[in-house]
Amino acid sequence: MIANPYYSQEVHGPYELHDIGNLTLEEGGTIRGCKLACATFGELNAAKDNAILIPTWYSGTTKIWEQVYIGPGRALDPEKSFIIGINQIGSGLSSSPHNTPPPDGMAGFPRVRIGDDVRAQHKLVTETFGLTQLALVVGGSMGAQQTYEWAVRYPDMVKRAAPIAGTAKNTDHDFIFTETLNEAIRSDPAWNGGDYAASSDVQRGLRRQARLWAVMGWSTEFYKREMWRTLGFASVEAFLVDFMEDYFLPMDPNDLLCMAWKWQRGDVSRHTGGDLRAALDRITAKVFVMPIDEDMFFPPRDCVPEQQMIRNSELRVIKSIAGHLALFGVDPDYGPQVDRHLKELLATPV
Amino acid sequence: MIANPYYSQEVHGPYELHDIGNLTLEEGGTIRGCKLACATFGELNAAKDNAILIPTWYSGTTKIWEQVYIGPGRALDPEKSFIIGINQIGSGLSSSPHNTPPPDGMAGFPRVRIGDDVRAQHKLVTETFGLTQLALVVGGSMGAQQTYEWAVRYPDMVKRAAPIAGTAKNTDHDFIFTETLNEAIRSDPAWNGGDYAASSDVQRGLRRQARLWAVMGWSTEFYKREMWRTLGFASVEAFLVDFMEDYFLPMDPNDLLCMAWKWQRGDVSRHTGGDLRAALDRITAKVFVMPIDEDMFFPPRDCVPEQQMIRNSELRVIKSIAGHLALFGVDPDYGPQVDRHLKELLATPV
Repeated sequence: MIANPYYSQEVHGPYELHDIGNLTLEEGGTIRGCKLACATFGELNAAKDNAILIPTWYSGTTKIWEQVYIGPGRALDPEKSFIIGINQIGSGLSSSPHNTPPPDGMAGFPRVRIGDDVRAQHKLVTETFGLTQLALVVGGSMGAQQTYEWAVRYPDMVKRAAPIAGTAKNTDHDFIFTETLNEAIRSDPAWNGGDYAASSDVQRGLRRQARLWAVMGWSTEFYKREMWRTLGFASVEAFLVDFMEDYFLPMDPNDLLCMAWKWQRGDVSRHTGGDLRAALDRITAKVFVMPIDEDMFFPPRDCVPEQQMIRNSELRVIKSIAGHLALFGVDPDYGPQVDRHLKELLATPV
Repeated sequence: MIANPYYSQEVHGPYELHDIGNLTLEEGGTIRGCKLACATFGELNAAKDNAILIPTWYSGTTKIWEQVYIGPGRALDPEKSFIIGINQIGSGLSSSPHNTPPPDGMAGFPRVRIGDDVRAQHKLVTETFGLTQLALVVGGSMGAQQTYEWAVRYPDMVKRAAPIAGTAKNTDHDFIFTETLNEAIRSDPAWNGGDYAASSDVQRGLRRQARLWAVMGWSTEFYKREMWRTLGFASVEAFLVDFMEDYFLPMDPNDLLCMAWKWQRGDVSRHTGGDLRAALDRITAKVFVMPIDEDMFFPPRDCVPEQQMIRNSELRVIKSIAGHLALFGVDPDYGPQVDRHLKELLATPV
């Protein structure tokens, strides 16, 4: 357990910490007094039918949803909806390796699966907010994995779902890409098997991870057209150091590894003995599958076959040369596309 | 200078070592008694107009061209052509960090550019073989970079050129990808600034590099369709260890870094003050630009604009889900496509 000021109300708040009690995990083990950091926007209506749930992606928190996706007039409109953002386990805000006391913290943190997150979130929204339905679950990347898991695991509760830039079952290619991210950290001698005094000790590993994201996270066209200039940088190297490295450097290495382990193994077909079609057939929600056309590790062609297995679904491809990290909202044409699709989805009767 | 049995006649021969004398380098410095490892196939005809030159790619040698591309009835037919394969500087067979005596060897090896390779090759083929023209220059990846350099630098000599899966000017995206390969090696403490006793000391870094190649070298479809099974492996992990890691493990880390430095900076517009169009306009050869459709770091859209700047050129896209490493010949549909295009190119009067 170590202090890390990055994971704080100052940087990522406001959010509330909810203790949902002990969480028994699919892989065995327990998170004792599991805490979920939750940010809400807007008010729950009397019918309790205007709740939107947003699970978070790898390295991201609910803060970026607040900054990039949520606002009056947007699809995610706090004047119309009760929006609940829940930071995933391992995010650094909710229960995570770095903020869990020994012997369960740091490298002793148990293995967590996407299904554990979704069960924890279900407990929170049903018991704390008294919800019996979600008008929409929407998430990007690992948030898309959780979105699929929600729709498969709790079909009666999820009315609409919008997985953005993610898959229901992770691919082999994505697994080995993610492993290079892990290896970037673990290859730093300062990581020391997960036992370090401060995240910044592992800065070489974190920088390497940032550089890997720079290769796969954007797209070749992003660099060809020098889209990084629109973010205010004068050179590629300045972009890599001041944007990519500075983004990852304050993060906790064990927290990232915890999330990556989940990400690599995201797979709703665990509910149906490996039968992906049967798992996706459980979904009753109206689903918009929203890959990003230039995404290098969740390419549309990995998302389309899944969409085709979901009865009440449509494919809505988002166009952006920012690739996977269009999720960050760096492309001004991205937000309007997301809004247009989500508004249409929310307007669809279910 | 260290012994490494991988770079030997037993593994990569037969080849001849030609000493072309001291090579003054573009970046300053000299390779004293520069040696080029050269493999030839077929006979030079009396008119001396049937010579084909093949420069090599990163980590590869002329051996893979012998095994995968050259043969009777093939486009590269030793019964018709005099085929000269020249291993690039840093390849481990020609002058390279690991085989150069102190103080110029290992980390003391000077910076080499694509242009240095091509000037060295030019000296060899003009002085040793007495050539004044090349019926074809063909190469893949870094070999494509050298092919472009040949066509721009010696337009009167190069009659036809076929750059496969490579660019005339390296992209920013490709540069930062390649840097992750370098960093995989340099982050291994055993690399020790380039001063190690045996390549195998740096095996963790080399394995990391192999894993990065596994992500970008193939394609998402390669893994989706489990094409690795056709290579005889029972699992992705077996493929990664027994194919990818075993391929890179015997190689010399400094040699790889030497080649990567060149690769990152390949740019024919150095001849024309940064004007790529003017550089490519120097080419008089008939050129077939041959990207691979699934190539993740030399995608067709990076190659097409270059092709469009070359007067006497055609775009010939090769289809393969093996991506960039289709170059290895692992896709049975790849070789026939290459042969068809090269046969047509060779049959084109110039």
